[in-house]
Amino acid sequence: MTIYHKITVIGGGAWGTALASMATRAGREVTLWAREDDVVTSINETHENKDFLPGITLPEGLKATSKLADAEGSDVILMVVPAQFVRAVAQDLKSFLKESTPIILCAKGIEQSTGKMMNEVMSEVLPKSPLVVLSGPTFAHEVAKGLPAAVTIASRYQQIAQNVADTLGQTTFRPYLSRDVVGAEVGGAVKNVLAVACGIVAGLELGENARAALITRGMAEMVRFGEARGAKRETMMGLCGLGDLILTCSSTQSRNMSLGMALGQGKSVEQIMMGRKSVAEGYHTASILADIAEQESIDMPIAAAVHKILHQGGDVAKVVEDLMRRPYVSEL
Amino acid sequence: MTIYHKITVIGGGAWGTALASMATRAGREVTLWAREDDVVTSINETHENKDFLPGITLPEGLKATSKLADAEGSDVILMVVPAQFVRAVAQDLKSFLKESTPIILCAKGIEQSTGKMMNEVMSEVLPKSPLVVLSGPTFAHEVAKGLPAAVTIASRYQQIAQNVADTLGQTTFRPYLSRDVVGAEVGGAVKNVLAVACGIVAGLELGENARAALITRGMAEMVRFGEARGAKRETMMGLCGLGDLILTCSSTQSRNMSLGMALGQGKSVEQIMMGRKSVAEGYHTASILADIAEQESIDMPIAAAVHKILHQGGDVAKVVEDLMRRPYVSEL
Repeated sequence: MTIYHKITVIGGGAWGTALASMATRAGREVTLWAREDDVVTSINETHENKDFLPGITLPEGLKATSKLADAEGSDVILMVVPAQFVRAVAQDLKSFLKESTPIILCAKGIEQSTGKMMNEVMSEVLPKSPLVVLSGPTFAHEVAKGLPAAVTIASRYQQIAQNVADTLGQTTFRPYLSRDVVGAEVGGAVKNVLAVACGIVAGLELGENARAALITRGMAEMVRFGEARGAKRETMMGLCGLGDLILTCSSTQSRNMSLGMALGQGKSVEQIMMGRKSVAEGYHTASILADIAEQESIDMPIAAAVHKILHQGGDVAKVVEDLMRRPYVSEL
Repeated sequence: MTIYHKITVIGGGAWGTALASMATRAGREVTLWAREDDVVTSINETHENKDFLPGITLPEGLKATSKLADAEGSDVILMVVPAQFVRAVAQDLKSFLKESTPIILCAKGIEQSTGKMMNEVMSEVLPKSPLVVLSGPTFAHEVAKGLPAAVTIASRYQQIAQNVADTLGQTTFRPYLSRDVVGAEVGGAVKNVLAVACGIVAGLELGENARAALITRGMAEMVRFGEARGAKRETMMGLCGLGDLILTCSSTQSRNMSLGMALGQGKSVEQIMMGRKSVAEGYHTASILADIAEQESIDMPIAAAVHKILHQGGDVAKVVEDLMRRPYVSEL
């Protein structure tokens, strides 16, 4: 059994901090790199990430740094910066890594400027680094508190994936192995758009049956999109796909669902955006998915409906009604 | 387009009453058979099913009867009695039906005395009647109120399935077609056991990540069980499988989840049963699934855990911990 003892987590947001805490609890020597000096100081001096995970006490062994150079000599890297920053940070990180150092990609999303998935971005910037994707249904604050979670760990390098599982696995953090890197990433990218749709249904007060049907039909869209990208259906039915979708579409507190809820309650896109500091990921991903679906003739009516409402001035009630007026067809 | 105009719904519980209301709203001539005279009187005189759907006004056109003979001359029958009564009621109904009259099976569950699925029971009692299975994520009170829902309609007779879709389909009730009768039934049978497990996790306050992971791993068990019974994976990923599972495992008010919650909160099975008039379906189904899984070597650790807690005196905390200590394996 190979354990990676020295770990650097790149990204001091909620999810990076939670993963760093979890790895520390597993007995590893963990350094957390954060862009913001405040975050570094807060973690090192008070064992708390006041900006992104307030109120949760982090393990004493967890150290934070603002120097990327501290990643040098790590046995493994966890990449947990927001999707739109992955390319730039990976570029900056490059000079400090050995080519053989495995990178565990924990960022979820599609690069807006290119439409590329995160594993494609990583392969362009660090083509020789063995890549592992970690994804699953994981609210950061629960993982940080040590509540149980299970994730998919996917890699073309099965021995490395097994090592990662042995390195991070514990009773309250259960990795399941997969070889399907693309499939492991699809869920995290598509779910946010479907969460906006679930929010709309909740805002319109259409009920729980409608929400469950929407998640199910949304899952079928995720599978069609993923298969067009070479993902395996089995992977998407797992924790990284279905699991993440179920979690994201259950939480009315998520930014994507609350964006949808405001739309369903009759607010305009402009009104909602004015009141927000940052944009929900699903806002942009909806356009990317709708474009790809149209170009490649993938049937994704829910993603298209969300795109229409968010970016083409579509009337919420009418778009939803059109969605429910489609002919009665075979389910898959 | 063939429409079945004259419909008899067999079963005056919440789901039968909701389906009868929905069919009436579709413009059909609907008679609802109920065993209880009170229910018949309540529906005919006050347009309300006070016992099973209190507070919801039913369409004026909906008539109730306590005579099974009134089913004679129906174009189609909806079978909506509880699973354990399907065999007896189908037997009683037999003499009033033409052999060519399609039967839409809406009852969900496994016959406890035989371990058989409802489509098997129906085929034994009414071997010549064309059978259609209707199943999906459907809280009865939402369908009764006319909130939107989507369901799977499965039959080996595709023209009849299409007719049923055309007969019942409306903007707020969307049927999706399938040929896989067995697959359409699996979800409704398995979901209750998984809902008990979700309740246990909620009662133990293990968090949303654990619940999402459990539903996902439970879905994998449903698929393994279904495939051993000849069901198609695609069907189980649809409304009747995944959709129904998501809905059932989201509602803390369901009897199965609340049974699990009480267990998770530390109550004994005996304490819980003493305070209840009727037993949650998952209580018995857990044993049936655990038995079948053991006999046929189907990997169903969650069903086995629920069975162990409910029927073999298993300690909740220990069984759940064992479940989380299984080795890190491939996800499917």
